[in-house]
Amino acid sequence: MQAAERRARKTEMKREAILRSAAAAFRRKGYHGTSMEDISEALLMTKGSLYYYFKDKEEILYACHDFSLDRVLERMRQVLADGKGDNAETRLRALVQGFVDVMIDDLQGSALALDFTALKPELLARIIAKRDQFERGMRGVITEGVKSGEFKRTDAKLATLAILGAINWIGKWYRPDGPFNAAEIGKTYSDLFVNGLRAK
Amino acid sequence: MQAAERRARKTEMKREAILRSAAAAFRRKGYHGTSMEDISEALLMTKGSLYYYFKDKEEILYACHDFSLDRVLERMRQVLADGKGDNAETRLRALVQGFVDVMIDDLQGSALALDFTALKPELLARIIAKRDQFERGMRGVITEGVKSGEFKRTDAKLATLAILGAINWIGKWYRPDGPFNAAEIGKTYSDLFVNGLRAK
Repeated sequence: MQAAERRARKTEMKREAILRSAAAAFRRKGYHGTSMEDISEALLMTKGSLYYYFKDKEEILYACHDFSLDRVLERMRQVLADGKGDNAETRLRALVQGFVDVMIDDLQGSALALDFTALKPELLARIIAKRDQFERGMRGVITEGVKSGEFKRTDAKLATLAILGAINWIGKWYRPDGPFNAAEIGKTYSDLFVNGLRAK
Repeated sequence: MQAAERRARKTEMKREAILRSAAAAFRRKGYHGTSMEDISEALLMTKGSLYYYFKDKEEILYACHDFSLDRVLERMRQVLADGKGDNAETRLRALVQGFVDVMIDDLQGSALALDFTALKPELLARIIAKRDQFERGMRGVITEGVKSGEFKRTDAKLATLAILGAINWIGKWYRPDGPFNAAEIGKTYSDLFVNGLRAK
């Protein structure tokens, strides 16, 4: 590995460590209740070096969402590309499981559950655009399922919002030491939604 | 009506007007971005008279949730009492529609969608206790449906969390001038969940 590449990779790893630590602090103390000191102290960093990576708390919150949404969208692209021959049920299950996995596992759980409305309009718009992209992907799968007769006739937009809402809400109740893991939640949710949509 | 009763009723109406106005301001500007002045000004009240009804912003946020949750629980009691002879599907549909109605219509939309984690632990605990009460009611209906064979075998706790999450999330995307009303949302969501749970 070249020196420049090593440096870039190191910066990236450091940024991810900051996001993990910040997401945990935001969950514990709330976004408004967390200071840059809290985040740097938890990482045994000086506040100064934290500012080297992120210019303020808002940028960190933005990066938490952006990082996790990129993973969700990456999973979606795989599902839509590799799963071209699959039926709507298989693809919907993969999208649900993919979103649940990122919701729970990334940045040690639910950076996506952090309240993004604290972001300023410009950053909020970018996060919402990525969320909309995933929503369109899922809605497309449901719409195709309805068209092919595999799924019942339903409002695909509302059905998508119901599914995404259920998954987004996981961040509100999920605890890493709780009784359910990502695979169990993904399976139960997929069953519920797929059975709910299946033509019979 | 006695004078004392009239006074009590008037205070109650005034409190509700404050909650409606405050819920709208919280949605528009965020809880942290809204001041007591914003709330009093929107009602053409002095800040002093606002403090006569609520001692601070946190108490208003608490009252928004408490007010709406009392309505949700009232609906639940009706459904569980009057619907004793009904099957699980009918009762689940009524619970879903009842929650959607309060979510959307009460305090002009989604006081329940306001972020309640801004509340201090003691108030938060009371709100969570009321939410838990509704969750137990819905879980009971699903559990009975599974036992009677009307519903598939599933984890009733997870299924309940999925349904409540989907409904809670409505507050994040619902706009009064949008394409869906409470009845349409309630119907599509009920169909999705009931079909998802139905044994066949």
